[in-house]
Amino acid sequence: MAVTADQVKELRERTGAGMMECKKALQESQGDFEKAVEVLRKSGIARAASRSGRAASEGVVESYIHPGSRVGVLIEVNCETDFVARTDEFRDLVRNLAMQVAAVGAEYVRREEVPAERVEREREILKAQTEGQGKPAAIVEKILTGKLDKFYSEICLLEQPYIRDDKKTVGDLLKEAGSKTGENLVVRRFSRFRLGAE
Amino acid sequence: MAVTADQVKELRERTGAGMMECKKALQESQGDFEKAVEVLRKSGIARAASRSGRAASEGVVESYIHPGSRVGVLIEVNCETDFVARTDEFRDLVRNLAMQVAAVGAEYVRREEVPAERVEREREILKAQTEGQGKPAAIVEKILTGKLDKFYSEICLLEQPYIRDDKKTVGDLLKEAGSKTGENLVVRRFSRFRLGAE
Repeated sequence: MAVTADQVKELRERTGAGMMECKKALQESQGDFEKAVEVLRKSGIARAASRSGRAASEGVVESYIHPGSRVGVLIEVNCETDFVARTDEFRDLVRNLAMQVAAVGAEYVRREEVPAERVEREREILKAQTEGQGKPAAIVEKILTGKLDKFYSEICLLEQPYIRDDKKTVGDLLKEAGSKTGENLVVRRFSRFRLGAE
Repeated sequence: MAVTADQVKELRERTGAGMMECKKALQESQGDFEKAVEVLRKSGIARAASRSGRAASEGVVESYIHPGSRVGVLIEVNCETDFVARTDEFRDLVRNLAMQVAAVGAEYVRREEVPAERVEREREILKAQTEGQGKPAAIVEKILTGKLDKFYSEICLLEQPYIRDDKKTVGDLLKEAGSKTGENLVVRRFSRFRLGAE
C-alpha cells in the first residue's frame, strides 16, 4: 500500500506523531485516515484530544444578540483572503446577515441542506392541500412547485427576502457583495437560539 | 378517544386553528400530537410555518466573540425567574461561561449528551493503551475509569476546570451561583464556531 507524503503530513498535523509512525499507521490502516488516527492513539503515540480542523478559509465568526437577550445568532461567513475579512464592508455584511437570521429566523443556509424526509413530508402536505381544490393535475404540479419554493424561502437563509431591501434575496446580496470585493463569499453556518425554544 | 382540554389548548397554540377543529384533528390522530398538526395542515387550516417552541423558562441568550473574530460562542443559560435573569450577577456568570467555552472549547454541556458510540470507541482506545502496560485487570479497570473521567472533563463543559479558578469545575460554579440566587441555573445549550473548522 503506497502512502503519499500529503497523507503523512496531514496525519502528523492532526496527531502530533512522528513521520515514520504516521507512515506505519497509514500502511496498517490501508490508507484509511480515521483508522490511522485510532491506530496511533491505541499505541499511545497520538495526542488524546486533538480537536481537528485546520483553517480552510478566511472570514469571520460574528454574533448578534437581540435587545432583551432572548434571541441570539452566531454566524460564520467565509471569504478568500484575510484582507477582505478585515474590511468594514465585509464586517457590515456579516452583521446584517446575523440580524437577518435573528429577525426572520431560518433553519438552514441553503435548500440542499434541508433533509430529504422533511421536504417529502412538506410536499405531501402541500399536495393534499392543493388536490382538495379540484384542479387539473398539471396545474396542481405547478402550484406545488410554487408552494415548495415558498417553503424553502421561509426556512433557507439564502432564499429569504433581505430585511433591509426585500426586492432582493439574501443570496443576491451575497453575490453583489462578492462581485464588489472580487471574492467568493459563503455563509458557512449559523446557530440561532431563542430562549426556551427548541 | 377522549381528548383533554390541555391537548386542545396546546394544538391551538401551535397551529392557530380553532378549538373544534383541534379537537377533531386530535380524535382523528388518536391523540398523536404531531399527526394532528399534519391533519390540520393538510386540510389547510393550520398556519404553514408555525415555528414551534413556547418559552419554557427564563434566562438569557448571550454570545462571546474572541478578539480577531475567529472563534465565537453562543450560549443559553436558564434560570427560573425574569428577576434573576436581569441581575448583573447572572449576566456576569453567563458571560464567563461563554468565555470558558471560547477559550477551552467543549463539545457538550454534560456527559449524558455524549453519544454512546463515541464513549464506546474512546473506552476501547483507552483500554488498548492501558492493557499494553501489563497491569492486572482490576488496576486496568480503575485506570480506565480515571481516563474516561478525564475524557469527559475535556469535552463536557460542566466537568471542565473553571478558567478563572481551576480549583472548581464549571458545574460547581453553577451550583454556587444557584444557591446564591436561590434558583436552579441550567446551561441549556451552546454553539462554538472556529473559523474554517468543523
